Amino acid sequence: MYINIVFYTLLKKTNYPVLTFIRMEFSNSITGLFGIRYPIIQAGMVWTSGWRLASAVSNAGGLGLIGSGSMYPEVLREHIRKCRAATSFPFGVNIPLMYPDIEKHMDIVMEEKIPIVFTSAGNPQTWTGILKEKGIKVVHVVSSSRFARKAADAGCDAVVAEGFEAGGHNGREETTTLVLIPAVADAVRIPVIAAGGIATGRQMFAAMVLGASGVQIGTRFVLSEEAGSHPDFKNYVLKAGEGDTMLTMKSLMPVRLLKNQFFKQVAAAEQAGASAENLKTLLGKGRAKKGMFEGNLDEGELEIGQVSALIRDILPAGGIIENLWSEFLKTWAEPLPCKLQKP
Amino acid sequence: MYINIVFYTLLKKTNYPVLTFIRMEFSNSITGLFGIRYPIIQAGMVWTSGWRLASAVSNAGGLGLIGSGSMYPEVLREHIRKCRAATSFPFGVNIPLMYPDIEKHMDIVMEEKIPIVFTSAGNPQTWTGILKEKGIKVVHVVSSSRFARKAADAGCDAVVAEGFEAGGHNGREETTTLVLIPAVADAVRIPVIAAGGIATGRQMFAAMVLGASGVQIGTRFVLSEEAGSHPDFKNYVLKAGEGDTMLTMKSLMPVRLLKNQFFKQVAAAEQAGASAENLKTLLGKGRAKKGMFEGNLDEGELEIGQVSALIRDILPAGGIIENLWSEFLKTWAEPLPCKLQKP
Repeated sequence: MYINIVFYTLLKKTNYPVLTFIRMEFSNSITGLFGIRYPIIQAGMVWTSGWRLASAVSNAGGLGLIGSGSMYPEVLREHIRKCRAATSFPFGVNIPLMYPDIEKHMDIVMEEKIPIVFTSAGNPQTWTGILKEKGIKVVHVVSSSRFARKAADAGCDAVVAEGFEAGGHNGREETTTLVLIPAVADAVRIPVIAAGGIATGRQMFAAMVLGASGVQIGTRFVLSEEAGSHPDFKNYVLKAGEGDTMLTMKSLMPVRLLKNQFFKQVAAAEQAGASAENLKTLLGKGRAKKGMFEGNLDEGELEIGQVSALIRDILPAGGIIENLWSEFLKTWAEPLPCKLQKP
Repeated sequence: MYINIVFYTLLKKTNYPVLTFIRMEFSNSITGLFGIRYPIIQAGMVWTSGWRLASAVSNAGGLGLIGSGSMYPEVLREHIRKCRAATSFPFGVNIPLMYPDIEKHMDIVMEEKIPIVFTSAGNPQTWTGILKEKGIKVVHVVSSSRFARKAADAGCDAVVAEGFEAGGHNGREETTTLVLIPAVADAVRIPVIAAGGIATGRQMFAAMVLGASGVQIGTRFVLSEEAGSHPDFKNYVLKAGEGDTMLTMKSLMPVRLLKNQFFKQVAAAEQAGASAENLKTLLGKGRAKKGMFEGNLDEGELEIGQVSALIRDILPAGGIIENLWSEFLKTWAEPLPCKLQKP
């Protein structure tokens, strides 16, 4: 806090860019756990988070994650090796636990000596112990305190608590980040990483005020130069406004999508009382690839968060981290635009 | 900020309760607009916010609102007069614009010289000008930047931006407070009051960091001694956990309800493809009264916010305000549990 004041004084005297030169060190449970400079984790998103994005984020002081959910095992290995060649900083891999090739993926991260694994969509008990035995830090993504407690009991080093506003697959209880973070922070003793609805330094600060020790950011990094997603998808996300995404397919597996033609088909089917089986057929195979990787904006599944409404540019991942961190520091130095005064 | 530091020092030296004695004055656009001590507004909720609650909140330094949505015109007049007798501080009335007796309600607030009116669920253009001519401050409740701009254009003095996590009636776009507040704060120049998911001083601080100048709090005040709702309803809310509320009746008028027996009937009807007309019939008349006022927990409509999951006590409204404000100040003095350090 006292350093914060020094900062604030400098800020007033010399104006804002001084911050980037001073480079005070921030440290907390999350920077310590991963050995990173800023408590900013880039989400391991399908068809988006390859080695280019992950290494750019890690090089900039955050934690880059390779999203293995859209990769064949050997493709994952290739991304890991390229990422290692592109950065000397720590990076990790996100593995959805319901993935059919899960064993092969796990073998690869262990063989390649990946130091950090984020798991999601499944039971953390199955793999956490095995990974931890190899010295790997394990973080599980949850959407409720109940799941957070399960992850802590399974031995996870931290949890990502992901709110309703997040893009892609999401929980059934629909708890938003503003309510979820205090609930999870109260329920477990391991560090909590906030996710869902965070794209600015101010939002990052607010999420950490609520009890998180770091943030996981997806949507903002989809709109990075290094994201592997199709340029047409990125441009479509850039134009998204409030209300342009919706959590859907709740009877199957809830997922937040942009309201494109495919979404409308799903909504119409649901309105007509479609069963989970019907929806599965309608979804078919490869919808996410078609939309996010091949750029088929009508027929593809377009996963993105609500916070897309606030983002107006595509930037290099390193620039995103820099902006996040400097806005975070600025907010910390002067969180509110008003003062307390003697009566 | 500098006073903040003085505070912080005192806090460290003398421990926490000193804050309640010092009584520094806080002021910003919202305290100035309403002439209140703390930027805390108690939501005007049906079957809950009568004169007892509103006057208790105003006496404690917040802004109490009488919820006229569940009152016959003469009942509203009675509540206004009793509230005036019970407090010398400013209070207001919330009027849902789609209310059938709207003209009578508006006549009463003007006759009774109510200084502050919050309007919701309707077009702010119809009444704002008429009320403003009488010198009444007008605030409109919105769920998007688009509606916020409409309210500003209509001449409103402020907007309440209410996120998806809020209890009761809600917007169709499902934007959460974490995303909505920065969007609305960016869209309009009038002050923004954050609502939805706020029950603690920490959440209040986070919402104001995001760009709000005050907060409107509903659920936390349902669990106050002065709330007019049925004790059985309050006790049911007290037990609510994460995932126990859900936004429903989206084809009719979206409303967040506790998942009781009535909710389950609605959900089953929706799953079977019920039309808006079907839902209207199922809803019938007086469901909200039956649930929240008469305490029929099975057949009634039980409106409450997601943040009910975080609340564990029923307190006097004045105690709620005191707790909110002291936690808010404490958070402001030390928002994060970590420091910046020289490398």
